[in-house]
Amino acid sequence: MQIAVRIGIVTVSDRASRGEYEDLGGPAIRQYLQEVLSHDWVPVSQIISDDRSLIEAELIRMSDQEGCCLIITTGGTGPALRDVTPEATESVCEKMMPGFGELMRKVSLEKVPTAILSRQTAGIRGKSLIINLPGQPKAIRECLDAVFPAVPYCIDLIGGPRLETDASRIVAFRPRK
Amino acid sequence: MQIAVRIGIVTVSDRASRGEYEDLGGPAIRQYLQEVLSHDWVPVSQIISDDRSLIEAELIRMSDQEGCCLIITTGGTGPALRDVTPEATESVCEKMMPGFGELMRKVSLEKVPTAILSRQTAGIRGKSLIINLPGQPKAIRECLDAVFPAVPYCIDLIGGPRLETDASRIVAFRPRK
Amino acid sequence: MQIAVRIGIVTVSDRASRGEYEDLGGPAIRQYLQEVLSHDWVPVSQIISDDRSLIEAELIRMSDQEGCCLIITTGGTGPALRDVTPEATESVCEKMMPGFGELMRKVSLEKVPTAILSRQTAGIRGKSLIINLPGQPKAIRECLDAVFPAVPYCIDLIGGPRLETDASRIVAFRPRK
Repeated sequence: MQIAVRIGIVTVSDRASRGEYEDLGGPAIRQYLQEVLSHDWVPVSQIISDDRSLIEAELIRMSDQEGCCLIITTGGTGPALRDVTPEATESVCEKMMPGFGELMRKVSLEKVPTAILSRQTAGIRGKSLIINLPGQPKAIRECLDAVFPAVPYCIDLIGGPRLETDASRIVAFRPRK
Repeated sequence: MQIAVRIGIVTVSDRASRGEYEDLGGPAIRQYLQEVLSHDWVPVSQIISDDRSLIEAELIRMSDQEGCCLIITTGGTGPALRDVTPEATESVCEKMMPGFGELMRKVSLEKVPTAILSRQTAGIRGKSLIINLPGQPKAIRECLDAVFPAVPYCIDLIGGPRLETDASRIVAFRPRK
Repeated sequence: MQIAVRIGIVTVSDRASRGEYEDLGGPAIRQYLQEVLSHDWVPVSQIISDDRSLIEAELIRMSDQEGCCLIITTGGTGPALRDVTPEATESVCEKMMPGFGELMRKVSLEKVPTAILSRQTAGIRGKSLIINLPGQPKAIRECLDAVFPAVPYCIDLIGGPRLETDASRIVAFRPRK
């Protein structure tokens, strides 16, 4: 593999950013990727408050400076006043990927009727795929199980490094040419 | 309960607003809420034409002046020239809730293939949840049955009053802390 | 039938527009419509590159000059840099129809997990319904089978000509008055 695989993990939480609350979402994403990816990768982690400008700046930095091919956020996707992660994501992306949010809400809805309150989305900025996840570790895992089979091919299409998965865990789907 | 529960019901229809047609949608929403909510609530009803500025002004008035925690519209969600309720809703909301429209279209699609023509959505303005419903009483009931379990918790999250439901009719889902 | 039924078919592909690649998508749409529509119709076909301004100009021309009641695009709906068909579509439409994209992704997802990478949508410009389809002929057929039952009624509602289908192939759904 020529290009190092760098993956951004952004925890968006007022309380976690002030240290009043242990960040559980960021570590859950990191552990999931550790289990699923079959090659070396470099996590680039950050915990920030639910502030739209800060989230936008961090997503831009991870994409433009850090060269992350995949940036996963956790938190800030609900209806409350301080929940602005989807708006920050949309404002830094050149194109949106509505299918991610639709599928994540569909699988979460099989568990809880309040899944429709989750506003999570995904989009592309340059050579980075940005995906919003909910805050709860259990919901993070359900959502990643649903969308991850499509992630490696998406990153191929935007000119990123080739991700490989442990097929006993997640089969990365790539169409035959 | 400290805060009075005020709920806006907005019928959007050129013909009903001119009195050429009996408003069936507004009363269907009111009756549904009467059946489902287990406490007192105050309906704030209005019938207006399919005029984007009027719809926006009415949604703003119900949210900002009338203090409605929930505002439900009926009508104006189709593809026709005069159908502009979703655009009016989006323009007065600070954040959109795509999961509501997705779920309502999904349940309606089990009945009629033309459900994909319905453009209904939901969003948040201040401390109000605004939900668009279709015009037909039967479809109103199907859509509310699908989304209502998530409505009380959504209103909790945006700082509104605590809604309680008759659990034999709709179980309001609130996650355990 | 009073008004001639004119249907636009737009193949969006850098390679096909340069003649490096045979256009398979456009002919697949044409053949599908030939099978499904039970009356005469006039195809208005065009092959253009993945250039946002060109796509916008072509959609405007087919709607405003050619008078197409239905305009179907193929290609340019993925996440890659040159995939801009949905953005071009959205920028020329007065209203968007999210239910089309949701349903097309849902049916494609039953076949391949990468269906969530498809950003296709639909919208209304004047008296034209514009629908984005993927590039692969097989996926085109699956998507049209899913959404076509709602297309004739949508065109009725926006003031277009009455489309009739071969009911052994697709039943056009029109609600009883």
